Amino acid sequence: MSDVRPHEIMVPTTAPDDARLRFIGKIHTPWSDRKDCPRQGKIDGPECRIEIFEPWVPALKGIEDYDRIEILYWLDKARRDLVVQNPGHSDSVFGTFALRSPVRPNPIGTVLAKLVSVDGATLVVRGLDCLDGTPLLDLKPDRCAFSPKASPKPAAT
Amino acid sequence: MSDVRPHEIMVPTTAPDDARLRFIGKIHTPWSDRKDCPRQGKIDGPECRIEIFEPWVPALKGIEDYDRIEILYWLDKARRDLVVQNPGHSDSVFGTFALRSPVRPNPIGTVLAKLVSVDGATLVVRGLDCLDGTPLLDLKPDRCAFSPKASPKPAAT
Repeated sequence: MSDVRPHEIMVPTTAPDDARLRFIGKIHTPWSDRKDCPRQGKIDGPECRIEIFEPWVPALKGIEDYDRIEILYWLDKARRDLVVQNPGHSDSVFGTFALRSPVRPNPIGTVLAKLVSVDGATLVVRGLDCLDGTPLLDLKPDRCAFSPKASPKPAAT
Repeated sequence: MSDVRPHEIMVPTTAPDDARLRFIGKIHTPWSDRKDCPRQGKIDGPECRIEIFEPWVPALKGIEDYDRIEILYWLDKARRDLVVQNPGHSDSVFGTFALRSPVRPNPIGTVLAKLVSVDGATLVVRGLDCLDGTPLLDLKPDRCAFSPKASPKPAAT
């Protein structure tokens, strides 16, 4: 768990239990220490492998049609009780919601990655920046490329 | 909970408990019935209000600098056990991970919204498509506009 830096503000919290997640896979990256992870993934970064657990493998059907996919993962090493953070170890502090730091009340990372290939239960992607072994929460087509498959609705308000 | 349509595939699952979430706020939209929600939010859609719960309000500090923010929310009405879905009520089925449907093993919605204003614990945004009362999980600056605040790292692999 990360330490608290000068000027950071920690809040008292109770154990979270408003909803529960299941890990649906595991992300394999070249980075096994947080200090080696890039600050932000790049589409031309190294190839990383995502392993999907059963029974979710059939849910990949059709994902190969997308060049860009959104990946959600659980930053299981991050503390969850800071509201103000000092990422630059300076006098400038930022609210947690004005940062993409892993430290947040619900440490869910999101990334838009390039889908390189799908083979059975394994995807190869570029653009990640998380630790090796990070638990996977979700995969979705990039919202820009995706068109809803249901028939259009009548004009909504 | 939504029904299962022809050709959809449901998988047996146990109660999820790999990680736990806390709801940090509530989203107010004009849509109180799922059939009225737009299929995908639009940046020129109606203004919606997000209410942040204590003790997380100070975490908003600096978010007003961003025009676009990523919003994560919990689709608490969605079933979680379908791997193949039939969104068009047709013979075409799609894997859950090839859809942006609310029905998924971890029903987390993500949207890139326009931040209109921040006033105390309340944000006004455009671009949402979720039900009124949807629980909020996270807010982050849009990854395209955000520059990490920590000092750059030495060239990474």
